[in-house]
Amino acid sequence: MSKGITTRAEDYSQWYNDLVLKGGLADYSAVRGCMVIKPYGFALWENMQAALDKMFKDTGHQNAYFPLFVPKSFLEKEEGHAEGFAKECAVVTHYRLKANPDKKGTLMVDPESKLDEELIIRPTSEAIIWNTYKDWIQSYRDLPLLINQWANVVRWEMRTRLFLRTAEFLWQEGHTAHATAEEATEEAKRMLEVYATFAEEFMALPVIRGIKSASERFAGAVDTYCIEALMQDGKALQSGTSHFLGQNFAKAFDVKFLTKENQQEYVWATSWGLSTRMIGALVMAHGDDQGLIMPPKLAPIQVVIVPIYKGEESKPVIDAKADEIIKELKAAGIRVKYDNNDNARPGWKFAEYELKGVPVRLALGLRDLENNVVELARRDTREKQPVSIAGLSGYIEKLLKEIQQQLFNNALKYREDHITPVNSWHEFVKTLNEKGGFVSAHWDGTSETEAEIKEKTKATIRCIPLNNAPEEGKCILSGKPSKERVLFALAY
Amino acid sequence: MSKGITTRAEDYSQWYNDLVLKGGLADYSAVRGCMVIKPYGFALWENMQAALDKMFKDTGHQNAYFPLFVPKSFLEKEEGHAEGFAKECAVVTHYRLKANPDKKGTLMVDPESKLDEELIIRPTSEAIIWNTYKDWIQSYRDLPLLINQWANVVRWEMRTRLFLRTAEFLWQEGHTAHATAEEATEEAKRMLEVYATFAEEFMALPVIRGIKSASERFAGAVDTYCIEALMQDGKALQSGTSHFLGQNFAKAFDVKFLTKENQQEYVWATSWGLSTRMIGALVMAHGDDQGLIMPPKLAPIQVVIVPIYKGEESKPVIDAKADEIIKELKAAGIRVKYDNNDNARPGWKFAEYELKGVPVRLALGLRDLENNVVELARRDTREKQPVSIAGLSGYIEKLLKEIQQQLFNNALKYREDHITPVNSWHEFVKTLNEKGGFVSAHWDGTSETEAEIKEKTKATIRCIPLNNAPEEGKCILSGKPSKERVLFALAY
Repeated sequence: MSKGITTRAEDYSQWYNDLVLKGGLADYSAVRGCMVIKPYGFALWENMQAALDKMFKDTGHQNAYFPLFVPKSFLEKEEGHAEGFAKECAVVTHYRLKANPDKKGTLMVDPESKLDEELIIRPTSEAIIWNTYKDWIQSYRDLPLLINQWANVVRWEMRTRLFLRTAEFLWQEGHTAHATAEEATEEAKRMLEVYATFAEEFMALPVIRGIKSASERFAGAVDTYCIEALMQDGKALQSGTSHFLGQNFAKAFDVKFLTKENQQEYVWATSWGLSTRMIGALVMAHGDDQGLIMPPKLAPIQVVIVPIYKGEESKPVIDAKADEIIKELKAAGIRVKYDNNDNARPGWKFAEYELKGVPVRLALGLRDLENNVVELARRDTREKQPVSIAGLSGYIEKLLKEIQQQLFNNALKYREDHITPVNSWHEFVKTLNEKGGFVSAHWDGTSETEAEIKEKTKATIRCIPLNNAPEEGKCILSGKPSKERVLFALAY
Repeated sequence: MSKGITTRAEDYSQWYNDLVLKGGLADYSAVRGCMVIKPYGFALWENMQAALDKMFKDTGHQNAYFPLFVPKSFLEKEEGHAEGFAKECAVVTHYRLKANPDKKGTLMVDPESKLDEELIIRPTSEAIIWNTYKDWIQSYRDLPLLINQWANVVRWEMRTRLFLRTAEFLWQEGHTAHATAEEATEEAKRMLEVYATFAEEFMALPVIRGIKSASERFAGAVDTYCIEALMQDGKALQSGTSHFLGQNFAKAFDVKFLTKENQQEYVWATSWGLSTRMIGALVMAHGDDQGLIMPPKLAPIQVVIVPIYKGEESKPVIDAKADEIIKELKAAGIRVKYDNNDNARPGWKFAEYELKGVPVRLALGLRDLENNVVELARRDTREKQPVSIAGLSGYIEKLLKEIQQQLFNNALKYREDHITPVNSWHEFVKTLNEKGGFVSAHWDGTSETEAEIKEKTKATIRCIPLNNAPEEGKCILSGKPSKERVLFALAY
């Protein structure tokens, strides 16, 4: 019944691709670097969106929609921003095709349709949004402006991987405007905490809240806050970032407001984003050699029911019982699927839903039903046991919570076991190479040392944890004095 | 308290723009032909999406996501499709910018980043999706494939209008694959009925279900079904289309399946779409000279509460009562907003929410509260009356239903009054010019006559109504025999 999944030990990277492709989350597309998100993967994304969207609205944000296109001259306006994104921009230069006179049945770009100014497909929307905010903000009464957008963006990456790094991806991007630096900083931190809560409570993914070093900052930001998660291969994955943009974009787009004291001042800004990349994190954090493991809160299917027919006459009996159970589970708000497809055998279905990571499976056989029990299998532990049909929905509700918590606990334990403090360069390199995970080490605070460490080991500073304990020490590479440890890791 | 709305009689087109812009639905953007959907407009779209998405899922469809980009060679594969969309395509030709050496601080397209094959921003996704379906469909077991996508698309229109015709717009596009022509036709009709139900039950917009004439068909379709609505200026607006695509795309992309009888056959297809254009229809169908009128089922705010403070000491009393009422309304599932903003006076707020089309307004004054009543104003009729606070939520629930029905009835009456049967060319032209609306007339069934009518009058055949009564007659232009009447109109 194997679905031909490569094991993690054999080839971690191939294991990941197998889970995404064979688990039905996504597919390669004919367009370089772009993927197709398949129905099962998109249902997962919809559940993620619903949870996040509610948290955004509960913290006072509203959704809006801004154009896909950014005029080239807008991208130029904030220098750091332009530098950061120019190298990976899809550029629209023409707006019409015409029949190719030299080759019947084919089309060519109509040279007469050349645009006066090229349009960039948004890699992120600060430029187009701040150009709009200029018209929306006049006085302190218009602030704060708390807006989010769900959108597709394009960054022309050279090496792509399903979900983790694709040329086009889906995300949300919040863009807020404030009267003071304090308020904007608070907002950036508030939204980081929303991301952390989402990761931990919905994705069962423990994260470290931190701040980026200067060289890892978002292009155009004053400060970049981030949440960092650890994957099973010991590599870190940046899982959401929240930026304090200072007045950089307000100055670039000339967005001023009249203060209560009747002064013209530049507006303070934040932006924050979380993308379909998180699906990759979910796959890698929880999956095993049998396939995906979905955290119950986000699972598109929480319970799958597989009938074990024995002859035609058993069908109506089992189907009727299944109907009852489905009604009861649905009434309890549980997402349930009944797979009575005649084209596949139970064993094939068992393996299929294990691969898809459905948290709970119920098998309905005639003898079990006579005894008023069903066979229940947990995806995470793969334990099977008979469970009484009486009170089944209550049992499953409790079990789904338990599984959610267990997945978080497992990931947390792994993460805690993989934060290693080191005090020398030798230890640092050895830990990176042999153990992986986060390496907690002193650093002299310079971009030069950071770059040298990256060059020598490929490790980057994932973050300086928030509420880091101050500690005197010496930089592992330069030996210069340091006041706190930072977290290094190899990263996705 | 006027908000400076142009009246319909003065200038219908400007009235429409005023409602969209001043009502807070959308804004012009700096990108030619693209708009910004503002939070209030986007909240409306979210409600429309939620209603439609539920109907799609209830009819067995799943959401997925396909790439934004369509390689040029894919667009070429279906000849009619290519012809229909080639003239309005945004074309990506390069994937990188670089610093412009001739002008410090600016960027230029890096000529070395030219793509081997140009990418089109999807104007619709048949091409990229059918190229994918080729990998997903092998046998009859894989059918039907029922997929929907929520996405942005780009059609480079020369003359644009907010919501009605924009270069980029948001929509959903369903793409389904079937084993037989009958099944696909059924699907196309089923989804047309979903659109009609949505329009009538949620948007309070009566629509005519029909089929397009050959020259008005979707590029690549065998049959195009449509719903057509009538606006207050007597012009028609196409409000959703559902296409039976035959085997055109299956043949273009070589998508075959193994039948139960072990034969290789081409797959049958449908596609169907509904867009943010519908927001324009909603504005024009229900709005009046005071502003928008939102149908309660889709209204972002169903009830707005405005406190009428009289001195500081009245505030806590009124606020406390408002709190109670809000709790009660929310518990009944009513979307309510309390506007206790100190910066604006009640009269300004009244006009503001009239402009925004909020169905019900409650004014809370001290004396009213002492008498246990609130002043309730209906947006559609602009009637005001005192209503007892006891049982308020029940009263409002009923009232919202009544308003929804009333808006539909009004629009239906207008529509019925504006379907005019005519039997001569003279009558036809006179009706179009003087009365507007749908003109029901005989037509000889040829594209030549249809084109000549359009040239002479600008009127197009909106549709041949489904279940049209057969009737012998003579074409109003050519005098040739005709077997049924069709509906002509000037259209958006």
